[in-house]
Amino acid sequence: MVSINKRLTFQVATNPADERTLTLSSTTNKGHFISLRPFVRPTESEKDFPYEWAFAGTSSHAKSSATDGDSITIDFNFQFDTNVYLNKENTHRGEVHTLWTTWESGCVEERGKVFPFGAENEGVDFFELWQPIDATRDEFVILGNESEQDPNARSIALTLNNGEFEGLIVVVGKWAQGILFKKNDHTTKGVNILRAVEKQKGQWQTLLKYGADFDKFPVKFEAEEGASVVAGNATWEVIESNV
Amino acid sequence: MVSINKRLTFQVATNPADERTLTLSSTTNKGHFISLRPFVRPTESEKDFPYEWAFAGTSSHAKSSATDGDSITIDFNFQFDTNVYLNKENTHRGEVHTLWTTWESGCVEERGKVFPFGAENEGVDFFELWQPIDATRDEFVILGNESEQDPNARSIALTLNNGEFEGLIVVVGKWAQGILFKKNDHTTKGVNILRAVEKQKGQWQTLLKYGADFDKFPVKFEAEEGASVVAGNATWEVIESNV
Repeated sequence: MVSINKRLTFQVATNPADERTLTLSSTTNKGHFISLRPFVRPTESEKDFPYEWAFAGTSSHAKSSATDGDSITIDFNFQFDTNVYLNKENTHRGEVHTLWTTWESGCVEERGKVFPFGAENEGVDFFELWQPIDATRDEFVILGNESEQDPNARSIALTLNNGEFEGLIVVVGKWAQGILFKKNDHTTKGVNILRAVEKQKGQWQTLLKYGADFDKFPVKFEAEEGASVVAGNATWEVIESNV
Repeated sequence: MVSINKRLTFQVATNPADERTLTLSSTTNKGHFISLRPFVRPTESEKDFPYEWAFAGTSSHAKSSATDGDSITIDFNFQFDTNVYLNKENTHRGEVHTLWTTWESGCVEERGKVFPFGAENEGVDFFELWQPIDATRDEFVILGNESEQDPNARSIALTLNNGEFEGLIVVVGKWAQGILFKKNDHTTKGVNILRAVEKQKGQWQTLLKYGADFDKFPVKFEAEEGASVVAGNATWEVIESNV
């Protein structure tokens, strides 16, 4: 079953909880995932790259396990990570271990620790709270105790990996999110980000449009698994599709 | 403009954030307010009265002021308070001072301090996070930076105060919430609670139904200001109505 979660709070170490972004994390039936975290009101210094963070990966980049209780663990090892790509200072490298617990309200708590100063130094605890939303709706409709995600919601993933570019697009229900890196660039000029929502059948509204090579994202996403989709001279491969 | 907020987190003192209820707080155009906080999965000991809390009041029971920053203060002095009515131990009495700040994400942070051990003893800090939702929808549709509350949404309040009962009903958009106390009872038998949502025009679905005198809540709420509405031999007065 797909999921799409809107982040409600972000809390690091002993700082107060806050939320400056409109973050959506989406995951396909097969576990391909992406999280895009644009600032709602970026400051002057944030305007060049108005994202707190963006990451993504195919299913092999996140290992999930049940725990004794009502929680699951997910160990991420991101395939795409804007902080790492941009060589930002004080950035965690390698696996991130997270613990996910669903509250009685239906929201999902994520707790974990990152090591921005290196694995040998002290880590920093973080807490994020997530609101599951209905993937089949073009508004943010809260999933709750009486409303479930549609198990047949659209679930598509496309990848691209050629000499020059590497990318991943995740489509769940009416929501498409994609990331595309220009290899060997490692500046914001090499980052491309897409978020789009299907307002009417086949009519996608672009919500996030970032990057010099944005035209390499397709404008339609439905295709058979194994098919190729060409956009802006780039060829994407459909690695998952329940259409 | 009306508001209806779904609570996302509740955090007291240094305890971790959590949310065990499906709390909705609604406020009319004129500032009449109610907050109903039913447990999603009450424990055995909670089943007799499966509410964390419920409170309400007409506009004169909440004083709001702007601050220097982006926040407002609200000083509550509840007209209806289940904890006080039930004479629960360690219950705050008198005004509660709260500070409300809207985050960039659109969620609203509430911070305050209560004095459950008496005004002369140390207080307890609390933090609640609220998600504004669209009053005109019968699902929980998130209001965000691009979607605003409908300024013309239905806004109705009814009060009842006779020798035996005292009550308040707040209707905003498609959401009705009411509380009714039997005077001089002060047990759970004297508490009545209503939540209903209008699924189709004039067709209300009851979501919360609590109390021996629940039949004294009306099943329809639209009437002119100043009119009377009779239900179960109880007569409610419409003190606000934009119908």
